[in-house]
Amino acid sequence: MPTLTLRDIASSIDGEVKGNIDLTIRLLSEVHKCNSDQICFIKDESFISKLSEDAGAVILSPEIAKKVKLENQIIVDDPYLGYARASKLFFNLYQSYEKAEPEIGENFIRGENVSIGHNCKIGKNVKIHDNVSIYPNTRIGDNVEIHSGSVIGSDGFGFAKDKNLDKWIKIYQLGSTIIENDVEIGANCTIDRGALGNTHLANGVKLDNQIHIAHNVIIGKNTAIAAQTAIAGSVKIGNNCQIAGHVSVVGHIEICDGVVILAKSFVTKSLSKPAVYSGVLKVQEHTKTLKLIAKLNR
Amino acid sequence: MPTLTLRDIASSIDGEVKGNIDLTIRLLSEVHKCNSDQICFIKDESFISKLSEDAGAVILSPEIAKKVKLENQIIVDDPYLGYARASKLFFNLYQSYEKAEPEIGENFIRGENVSIGHNCKIGKNVKIHDNVSIYPNTRIGDNVEIHSGSVIGSDGFGFAKDKNLDKWIKIYQLGSTIIENDVEIGANCTIDRGALGNTHLANGVKLDNQIHIAHNVIIGKNTAIAAQTAIAGSVKIGNNCQIAGHVSVVGHIEICDGVVILAKSFVTKSLSKPAVYSGVLKVQEHTKTLKLIAKLNR
Amino acid sequence: MPTLTLRDIASSIDGEVKGNIDLTIRLLSEVHKCNSDQICFIKDESFISKLSEDAGAVILSPEIAKKVKLENQIIVDDPYLGYARASKLFFNLYQSYEKAEPEIGENFIRGENVSIGHNCKIGKNVKIHDNVSIYPNTRIGDNVEIHSGSVIGSDGFGFAKDKNLDKWIKIYQLGSTIIENDVEIGANCTIDRGALGNTHLANGVKLDNQIHIAHNVIIGKNTAIAAQTAIAGSVKIGNNCQIAGHVSVVGHIEICDGVVILAKSFVTKSLSKPAVYSGVLKVQEHTKTLKLIAKLNR
Repeated sequence: MPTLTLRDIASSIDGEVKGNIDLTIRLLSEVHKCNSDQICFIKDESFISKLSEDAGAVILSPEIAKKVKLENQIIVDDPYLGYARASKLFFNLYQSYEKAEPEIGENFIRGENVSIGHNCKIGKNVKIHDNVSIYPNTRIGDNVEIHSGSVIGSDGFGFAKDKNLDKWIKIYQLGSTIIENDVEIGANCTIDRGALGNTHLANGVKLDNQIHIAHNVIIGKNTAIAAQTAIAGSVKIGNNCQIAGHVSVVGHIEICDGVVILAKSFVTKSLSKPAVYSGVLKVQEHTKTLKLIAKLNR
Repeated sequence: MPTLTLRDIASSIDGEVKGNIDLTIRLLSEVHKCNSDQICFIKDESFISKLSEDAGAVILSPEIAKKVKLENQIIVDDPYLGYARASKLFFNLYQSYEKAEPEIGENFIRGENVSIGHNCKIGKNVKIHDNVSIYPNTRIGDNVEIHSGSVIGSDGFGFAKDKNLDKWIKIYQLGSTIIENDVEIGANCTIDRGALGNTHLANGVKLDNQIHIAHNVIIGKNTAIAAQTAIAGSVKIGNNCQIAGHVSVVGHIEICDGVVILAKSFVTKSLSKPAVYSGVLKVQEHTKTLKLIAKLNR
Repeated sequence: MPTLTLRDIASSIDGEVKGNIDLTIRLLSEVHKCNSDQICFIKDESFISKLSEDAGAVILSPEIAKKVKLENQIIVDDPYLGYARASKLFFNLYQSYEKAEPEIGENFIRGENVSIGHNCKIGKNVKIHDNVSIYPNTRIGDNVEIHSGSVIGSDGFGFAKDKNLDKWIKIYQLGSTIIENDVEIGANCTIDRGALGNTHLANGVKLDNQIHIAHNVIIGKNTAIAAQTAIAGSVKIGNNCQIAGHVSVVGHIEICDGVVILAKSFVTKSLSKPAVYSGVLKVQEHTKTLKLIAKLNR
C-alpha cells in the first residue's frame, strides 16, 4: 500500500516539519485515536489534552506547538485549513488503493437503478429499493431495508475557509458509514459518512423518510426517528430514544438513552436525563400569534 | 387466490382463537371497514365502538375480549404487536398473488431511470421525470406530473415494540397510494402508501419539493402545499387549503376546507374553522432572542 | 426560430389586443427586462413603475391599462392567470426549438443513473454522483460536485387560480438554473429553475444535504447553507453568508453580505445588517414548555 512521509504532507499543506521528516504515515486520524503510523491535527487548545500518546505526528499552530510534547509535528498558521488540505492528499492516497467489488450476502433484493460503490459489504436478507445510492466503503448488516431515493455514505458537509484565497477548502470525508442489523431507512434519507471516524447506526434503528444524519453521528440501538428530522455532525444519541418529525439537533452534543423528543423541537444542548422534551410554540390563529409576538417584543 | 384461516393467523401471532378456527380470511382490514372475510384489531378501548358489525374476526386483548360480542376472536397479550405480526403474514399472502404489468395510459412521458412497480395503473397525459420511484399498487389519474427524485408508495413508518424481545416489529404496509387527476408533485417528495387503507391525493392537489406525506393521509381537492412540509399519518386535509413551507402537522387530526397555514407552523390539533394560522416566533437578531428567552424563562 | 404574434397570444389567453395585433413576439419576459420582441405582464399596481420602456407588449387588466402608456397591450380580467396561460404557450414554443446534446467539459466524472437534459452546459472537472437528475438548459461551471439524489432545474412551484374553473393553472417555468464554479451541492437537494429569469448560485456556494432552493433565488459567492434549509422564491442572498440547518426564508426578500443565521430560524423580512440572527425557542423539558405556553396564552 502506498504511504506518505511527513515531508509529503508538509509540502502539500505549506507546513514546517519538526522531528523525523521521513516518517511514514498511512492514515489521517482523529486526535484521540491516532496511532504511530498516523497523523492528526489539533484545532485549538481544547484538543491538546485529547492527543493520543501513540500519535505518529500532529498538525498544529506555532502557539500550540509550544505546549505539545509530541516529537513529530507539522506547524502551520491555520491547523484546520491544514487538516482540510491534508484530507485531499489522503483522499487521493486512499483512492489509489485496490478497489474491491461489493460483497453481498444471500437473499439480497436489489431494486432498479441502485448503485453500490466499491468496497461495500452488505449482509444477508437485505432489501434495497429503487434509486438508492450507496457510496463506497459502506458496511450494512443483516435484515436491513432501505427505501427508494435514500443516499448512504455521501460526503459530510465540511469546509475550512482559506482567508488568503477567500475560498472554502473542502475537507475530504475519509470515514465510512456503518449500519448494523435490523435497521430500516425510509425514502429520500441522507446518511453522510464520517469525516475521519465513522457514522454509525446500531442494531434496530428505524428511520422514517427524508431524515438527514450528518457525518460522525452515532445512533444507539432501537432508536426511532420520524420524518424530516436533521441530526448535525458528531451527535451521539443513546439507545431506545424516540425522536419525532422536523426536529433539529445541533452538532457535538449527546442525548442519553430513553429520551423522547416531540416534533419540531430544536435541541441545542446535551440531554442527560431520560424524559420527554419539546420546544416550540403550538399553532394557533395568526391574529393570536401576532398579538403574542407584539407582547413578547414589549 | 390463497387465503388464511383463523388457525394460521393465531399460530403466527401466538394468539388463542375463540369461535370458528377454520374461518377463511382474505384481508387484514381497518376496524370500521372490516367485512365477513376479513380480520381487524382493537388496539384499545376507543376502538371498541368503531368495530364493524360485519367483521369476520378481530384481534384483541383478554380484557377487551370481555366487552366485545363478535363471535370469532384471536386473543393476544398485546393486540398492536399482534397486528404487526399479522401484517407480515398478510404481506406474504398478498405477495403470492399474481403480479400484473403496470397499465399505462396514452401520451405517457417517462423520464430516465423511472421505476414503476407491479399492479400500478397510470392514466393518460402523465409525465414522470427522471429517477422517480413508484412502488407497486399505486394508482395515478390523468394529467399528473411528478418531478425527479420523488418516491410514491414507500412504506409508512410503523413498528410495534415487542417488549419481550426488546425489538421493533415492522408493521407491513398493506394499503396503496391513490393520486387523482391534475395533481403535480415536486422533486424529492415522499408519499407513503397506506398501512391498511390508502393514502389519497384528490384532484388538483399541488405539492412543491421535498414534501413528506405519511401513510393514510387524505388531501382534498386543489389543496396546495409548499416545500419541506411534513404531514404525519392519518391526517385528513380539506379542499382548497394552502399550506406553506416547513409546516409540521401531527398525526390523526383533521383540517377543514379553506384553511391557510403560514410557514414553519406546528399544527398540533384539528382546525375546524377556515382561517389563516401561524405559529412560530419570527426571526430577529440573536441578542434579542437571547433576551426574550431569558425573559420567558423567568 | 418560430415566433408568436399578439393575435396568437391574445387568442390563447382570452384577451383583447390594443395596438399592433401582428406584432412578433419571441419571449415571455420579466416586467423590468422586457425588450421590443418580448411580452411581459403587470400583476398589480406595484408593477407599473417597473415596466421596461422597451417592452414589446404587456398583459394587464382593464383598470391598469388606463395607467400604462405602452402601445401594445393584451387586456384580460386576471393578468396573473393570463400570464399562467401564456406561459404554457411559450413553453410549447420553446419546446419546438432545436434541442442540443449536452456540452460537457474535460475530466467529467458521471455517476450511475445520472440524467442530463438537452441544452445543458457543464464545465471541466465536474463530478456528478449517482441518481442525480439535471433538467434541460442547466448551466454548470468548473470544479462543481453534486451529490447523489439531487435534482437541478426542476419546475418552480407556481400556479394561478382560475376562479371560473375552480382549478389551479400551471405557470410553466421558462427560466434556467445557473451554477457557477467551485460549487458543491449535497445529497437530495432540489434547485428549481427560474420562472422567467434564472436561479443562480455564484462561485464557491456550498450546500449541505436536502436543501430546497426555489425558483429565481440568487445566492452570492461563498455562501454556505446547512441541511434541510428552504429558501423560497426570488430571495436574494449576499456573499459570504452562513445559514444553518432547518432555516426557512420566505420569498421575495434580500439578505445582505456576511449574514449568519442560526438553525431553525424563520426569516420573514429582509436583513440589511451583517449580524448573527436566530429565532426559535430552545428545547427544554416538555413540562416547562407547557407552563410557558400557558403563561404566554394568558
